[in-house]
Amino acid sequence: MSVPHAIFVSGVAGFVGSKLARLFVDRGYPVFGFDDLSRGSRENLSGLLTHERFIFEKVDLSDAGAVRSRFMNCHSRIPISEVWHMAANSDIASGIADPSVDLRDTFLSTFNVLDAMKEAGIPFLAFASSSAVYGDLGEAPIREDVGPLLPISNYGAMKLASEALISAAVEDWLDRALIFRFPNVIGVPATHGVILDFVRKLRGTPNKLNVLGSGRQRKAYLHVDDLIDAIVYLRANASERLGYYNIGPEDKGVTVSFIAETTVEAVAPGAGIEIEYGVEDRGWTGDVPRFSYDIAKIRALGWRPQLGSADAVRKAVVEIVRQEANL
Amino acid sequence: MSVPHAIFVSGVAGFVGSKLARLFVDRGYPVFGFDDLSRGSRENLSGLLTHERFIFEKVDLSDAGAVRSRFMNCHSRIPISEVWHMAANSDIASGIADPSVDLRDTFLSTFNVLDAMKEAGIPFLAFASSSAVYGDLGEAPIREDVGPLLPISNYGAMKLASEALISAAVEDWLDRALIFRFPNVIGVPATHGVILDFVRKLRGTPNKLNVLGSGRQRKAYLHVDDLIDAIVYLRANASERLGYYNIGPEDKGVTVSFIAETTVEAVAPGAGIEIEYGVEDRGWTGDVPRFSYDIAKIRALGWRPQLGSADAVRKAVVEIVRQEANL
Repeated sequence: MSVPHAIFVSGVAGFVGSKLARLFVDRGYPVFGFDDLSRGSRENLSGLLTHERFIFEKVDLSDAGAVRSRFMNCHSRIPISEVWHMAANSDIASGIADPSVDLRDTFLSTFNVLDAMKEAGIPFLAFASSSAVYGDLGEAPIREDVGPLLPISNYGAMKLASEALISAAVEDWLDRALIFRFPNVIGVPATHGVILDFVRKLRGTPNKLNVLGSGRQRKAYLHVDDLIDAIVYLRANASERLGYYNIGPEDKGVTVSFIAETTVEAVAPGAGIEIEYGVEDRGWTGDVPRFSYDIAKIRALGWRPQLGSADAVRKAVVEIVRQEANL
Repeated sequence: MSVPHAIFVSGVAGFVGSKLARLFVDRGYPVFGFDDLSRGSRENLSGLLTHERFIFEKVDLSDAGAVRSRFMNCHSRIPISEVWHMAANSDIASGIADPSVDLRDTFLSTFNVLDAMKEAGIPFLAFASSSAVYGDLGEAPIREDVGPLLPISNYGAMKLASEALISAAVEDWLDRALIFRFPNVIGVPATHGVILDFVRKLRGTPNKLNVLGSGRQRKAYLHVDDLIDAIVYLRANASERLGYYNIGPEDKGVTVSFIAETTVEAVAPGAGIEIEYGVEDRGWTGDVPRFSYDIAKIRALGWRPQLGSADAVRKAVVEIVRQEANL
């Protein structure tokens, strides 16, 4: 039996990257993982760090020279056949205050990973893109081929920039790429996002929950277990040279007020905690107020999520309340 | 009478930037112009460099610190009210061989200009984007709102990345932006492009013209005089916060073989120079083989070009043959 080639995962200490690495290791692949540990953490890699098939390196992915030399070093130890580029700034608001955050962590990380792949001749890239590439297209469910693409956050802009570079690479030297346009993904380990914000606010002021915006914003949410299932499914079943897929639930999503009420009930059942709303429909600059996906493309390949937005929120709220209670 | 605010032009020594600067100076505006002179030249600024309302600075636009400090310095001398960002790598093929060229010159230049504008609080940006953002969408005329946007060159990718950043800036702090999606633009001073290539090849081998590709590639061409007319027209007549417009002729374009024949006839009328074609429909990686614009959006504002593709080619061939004869 031949030894399998290795899989490379960037952002390996993050929310999605850590779960992917675990899955690939469990399936018998050697896995190289890079992360700068700025948002991801070693805790997310518990059990993996000591695994014989897992090799972690702390690398700043915006440093072109470091990425190239350390990637080539891994590749010379065990040939890498796939790159899963999951690293990015995950805090959209921070990238609006300072555009250099998304330039560096969401875009230059992609540029540098592609550069290293080209140097090493790696044939396959899987990329975590985002619904944020679509900007604010209003109420109608979004198909993958829609235009125009006018992102309203630097995060969305730098995800679109990354997609564009990958597209040009497929035209030139890259054999195959899969682009996943992630929706709002929830679950644990949670490091950011609306549910975690609410749970933490309720630790600070236990009898009141202050919500940014009117609470009427409606978005689709996918549980991370469904997300991982989808991207592994696409790896096995999508066959285009450049595949790009919305991944999300099929519903129109849930409102922020639903999330607030679900969180309040999970934290203190029956306590009647007061929820205070703002007046703006948009919570903060760069936040898309309404949002739902058309997922006909991935459905046509035979995949659908286990949980809709409401059940995903219910499950994630329970998980995140438990996570925070254990701190 | 109040002194007009200044206009800032990046890429001011280039093909389009130099013409814009001249036009604004002629209209009475003080003009600050930056260029790194890597592709543009001081010759393009002849007459302007000594003009009292024109101030040129040699600046590497990919150097964030230099752009910011020297832009702020200009702004403190005469307040800048408009930025016309024309700087980019103009050699698509060079950016395919080395992606760092378009990263630096086509994208980071935009990032740094936006950074300086935000710091100075400039309300208006005009940006030279490109048909390359559309990738290869086949034969049908391209409307501005089409999707998906999958560029096939790093140049196109970094123009799309620039548009995306501008879109996010308009959502956040920038009052207004105009994005011009340039087609193939021809005229003088020519520094690159198919006509100049043919004229120079014919100087090397006067009795034979070797053409990359089958010659059947068909593209729309706009003369630079029409281009300048269009962008100044849009400045006066477009009113969206974020306007994005195709600028081009209304026809389906002309073939490479038409350009070859027109050039051969202009260089040596009646000499019967042999034209040799390749077999591929695409001349080089990243080249879009067929391409035509739907320009209904700019037409609805009342603008249309003076010259179609064929007449634009005829005019530019004469101009470029004369330019090269004078070297």
